[in-house]
Amino acid sequence: MARVVQNPLAISLGDPAGIGPEVIAKCWDNRDSFGLPPFVAIGDPRSVAAVWDGPIEMVDDPRQADSAFDFGLPLIQLNVPKEDVPGHPTVGGAHTSLDSLEIAVGLARSGSASAVVTGPVSKEQLYAIGFQHPGQTEFVAERCGVSPGNVVMMLAGPTLRTVPVTTHLALSEVVPNLSSALIESRGRAALRGLQRNFGIAEPRLAVSGLNPHAGEGGELGREELELIEPAIAALAAEGWRVTGPHPADTMFHTRARANYDAALCMYHDQALIPIKALHFEEAVNVTLGLPIVRTAPDHGTAFDIAGQDRADPRPMAAAIRMAAENAIQRADTA
Amino acid sequence: MARVVQNPLAISLGDPAGIGPEVIAKCWDNRDSFGLPPFVAIGDPRSVAAVWDGPIEMVDDPRQADSAFDFGLPLIQLNVPKEDVPGHPTVGGAHTSLDSLEIAVGLARSGSASAVVTGPVSKEQLYAIGFQHPGQTEFVAERCGVSPGNVVMMLAGPTLRTVPVTTHLALSEVVPNLSSALIESRGRAALRGLQRNFGIAEPRLAVSGLNPHAGEGGELGREELELIEPAIAALAAEGWRVTGPHPADTMFHTRARANYDAALCMYHDQALIPIKALHFEEAVNVTLGLPIVRTAPDHGTAFDIAGQDRADPRPMAAAIRMAAENAIQRADTA
Repeated sequence: MARVVQNPLAISLGDPAGIGPEVIAKCWDNRDSFGLPPFVAIGDPRSVAAVWDGPIEMVDDPRQADSAFDFGLPLIQLNVPKEDVPGHPTVGGAHTSLDSLEIAVGLARSGSASAVVTGPVSKEQLYAIGFQHPGQTEFVAERCGVSPGNVVMMLAGPTLRTVPVTTHLALSEVVPNLSSALIESRGRAALRGLQRNFGIAEPRLAVSGLNPHAGEGGELGREELELIEPAIAALAAEGWRVTGPHPADTMFHTRARANYDAALCMYHDQALIPIKALHFEEAVNVTLGLPIVRTAPDHGTAFDIAGQDRADPRPMAAAIRMAAENAIQRADTA
Repeated sequence: MARVVQNPLAISLGDPAGIGPEVIAKCWDNRDSFGLPPFVAIGDPRSVAAVWDGPIEMVDDPRQADSAFDFGLPLIQLNVPKEDVPGHPTVGGAHTSLDSLEIAVGLARSGSASAVVTGPVSKEQLYAIGFQHPGQTEFVAERCGVSPGNVVMMLAGPTLRTVPVTTHLALSEVVPNLSSALIESRGRAALRGLQRNFGIAEPRLAVSGLNPHAGEGGELGREELELIEPAIAALAAEGWRVTGPHPADTMFHTRARANYDAALCMYHDQALIPIKALHFEEAVNVTLGLPIVRTAPDHGTAFDIAGQDRADPRPMAAAIRMAAENAIQRADTA
């Protein structure tokens, strides 16, 4: 018997002037070929109608989405004073995207929704309305009562998962911000996430070096010896299956990827370059360390192409599929 | 009429205790299926015979290799006092590998060989015998009378070519060593190399950012604004087709790669991660800026698997093919 999610997934539309509404509507259009479970969108129906001619099914509760899903895109309507125009972000749109996120997370927290998938938002617009978090991930963490330091971002595609230890830092700030403690805690969160979200009982983590050739025994940098190896040793002492530090350039070819379940990378581009080179259309951002399942497509609002029927729905479809798979996995192991 | 190289290619066997002899012999075995032109190896025939049962054709001159190539692996013999053992590098082997390199480069310099392909050497062993260059590339540059600063390393695969601006530096040394002048000169060398070696009349160069999201307009680092943009502007002012700085994580997916002929990257792993993730078995190291064509497979001596018939000859085959193509291109445009 195929396993299915218990309740529909909640999807925030993201910024109403971005490509979120379009890719979510296209996911409903292609729900069969994409293999998507029932989901409910939260936002302003006008932002969907502005870019899509398909049927919208207004619902009040995710539980109605299951039956509505066959007839149209189930949508929980937000009260939005002013209609947004695709490609023209406003502070009003930022309020809408935040309300949508808040409700989607709440539905997942309460259990009415099996997971939350977040559409792309504009940080610039959110900051303009007083949003205090670096991004949606930290907002979701706070709403779940989890310290942002205990959640990690994983980028997951069909044949590779990567977790960056440091994220949005200038390259010159990476080394000053790296520590054994940080590598260790990110590694532990990644390993636990592989167990909880992906059902891998004994996950294998491959840890990258920071420097070319993983430092060549100290010749090309000492961070491997002083920061990374101690973190690997500490995780191994807890019984985790951890290897490295591996030279980053030889970690991501087909044969190498077969040796681990996730790669722990030292900085943003080290984690993002390989996942996007290999799986650009299917890379999913998964937040690990939360009491709920949260995924997102790994792209932005793309205001420049919004409303032109040019947005590719495959990353959103991949995020929805992965949210469903993670939710099933968690229900099984709960 | 298919274009062919005028003279055979010269291939140095590399360290006799490494996998060089094995992969070169396997290339001769598979010369038809790999689509390889005639080549002549330079080294100790015993290092080939130790790992391969096929026929070796001793020659004195590359001109004999053409006719010998049908009957066996053409080889110019070096006088080596002591036989080497696969997997056991020695300083004697280092001398052999250096002699082999010296002769191969000389044959290409004189025109007797159309190009040189270099087998993998052990830098550790070479340093032990007083070798003063960082690697084979700089040695070849010196023998060609070119300043090492004017040659660049390109990593080339079937759908991607990358050129690192900085190479073997600890990550924390990248920013202190980056300058507009260096980015500009590496970019210019890459563009000229695309013209000379690859026959692209109006090459397109995509320049990466250094920081995540190419610095987000200065929010995540200022090197894009202060170092990279001025270099791009200077190259553009000379009439070159140059774009960027591009966020490195979105430069390497299929659609993005179609927009440029080479990517100029700021540091080792930024250039090496994508090429090896995408083209591990076919990544070729091409030295641009030389009066001769020089390529090499992008792997090391692999002493740990030498003599076990486990080495994959495909990277060496790719290096031989690319050397031949580059040599034909240069002959055409000369």
